[in-house]
Amino acid sequence: MRDNSLLNRLVQLLASLPGLGPRSARRAALYLLTRKDTHMMPLSRVLEEVAETVQECPICGNLDMVSPCNICSDPKRDPSTICVVSQVADLWAIERSNAFKGKYHVLGGILSAIDGVGPEDLNISGLKKKAASENITEIIFALSATVDGQATIHYLTDELQDSGIKMTRLAHGVPVGGELDYLDDGTITTAIRSRSASE
Amino acid sequence: MRDNSLLNRLVQLLASLPGLGPRSARRAALYLLTRKDTHMMPLSRVLEEVAETVQECPICGNLDMVSPCNICSDPKRDPSTICVVSQVADLWAIERSNAFKGKYHVLGGILSAIDGVGPEDLNISGLKKKAASENITEIIFALSATVDGQATIHYLTDELQDSGIKMTRLAHGVPVGGELDYLDDGTITTAIRSRSASE
Repeated sequence: MRDNSLLNRLVQLLASLPGLGPRSARRAALYLLTRKDTHMMPLSRVLEEVAETVQECPICGNLDMVSPCNICSDPKRDPSTICVVSQVADLWAIERSNAFKGKYHVLGGILSAIDGVGPEDLNISGLKKKAASENITEIIFALSATVDGQATIHYLTDELQDSGIKMTRLAHGVPVGGELDYLDDGTITTAIRSRSASE
Repeated sequence: MRDNSLLNRLVQLLASLPGLGPRSARRAALYLLTRKDTHMMPLSRVLEEVAETVQECPICGNLDMVSPCNICSDPKRDPSTICVVSQVADLWAIERSNAFKGKYHVLGGILSAIDGVGPEDLNISGLKKKAASENITEIIFALSATVDGQATIHYLTDELQDSGIKMTRLAHGVPVGGELDYLDDGTITTAIRSRSASE
């Protein structure tokens, strides 16, 4: 790989992906180099095609190959329930669970004093507009169970108070399959406080 | 991501890379989706360009953008010492150390009864040809310190015995920076047996 800028560039680009460091990027590059026709060219083509067609949904902020996105244009989904998420990754995670059949709103982050993210950096005006103009009965805040996430929920609840829309947040507690022994104290405290009747 | 074959295909291709699973592949895909111009298109182009120009060096088996590879065509490198490695990744690892200034020979694997790799599956004939025709004074076997790796060295030493060329293998011992406490017994035993005079 000496003096070989093109291969180095490939390794650098792969190493910039989350989850890959310089060493694993080199392994990935070699993996691709030995599978030119079955992996390297297909990956190149799919990347190009996706880059050319992917777009942000103007309604919810999801990334999709069509605009508006498949979720916003799906007539089977309930438009009266909006699930507010921080980023597209969270939206996809909720979709994988198949537990939600309403629509989404991607904020584009959460409020953070440390990272310098203020209300003007998030798509809060879009959410307010939806709350004012559409027939929405419930807004679910599906934000991280961190201080910043909870502060964002608090801020949004305040901002949308006048709309009269029911606002909920995700339940906190023991993850399914989680062992108590490995859980942090905060989660156990929350799970005890939010305990439900055993049936 | 529902019903979205192109995005799914991208995630699948990324997930097939070593070091990335389905979950981290999704994260990597999202990372690329939000950086279309700075990462996604450049990666697509570099992959295409590399796939079109990379080739196996007919002399040593290295992968490079030129043929013969930069190492084989470098007049500053000593052609009388051949370093035998299992795969291109090992060659690159040795190059990074800058400790070897001879030439290489990539076997394409090591003998393995379990994986069904026999002598005919490796580029042993090429090595024999080099040993017979070129002016080689030393062959260094840089193969893994595993049973299969050592068996391969044993087999090759036997095969090349008649050439009269000096044959060596990498030293075994404590890795530089390694703490004794974390080392396996086999390495410690080898390190004690191969101990050298303290200067």
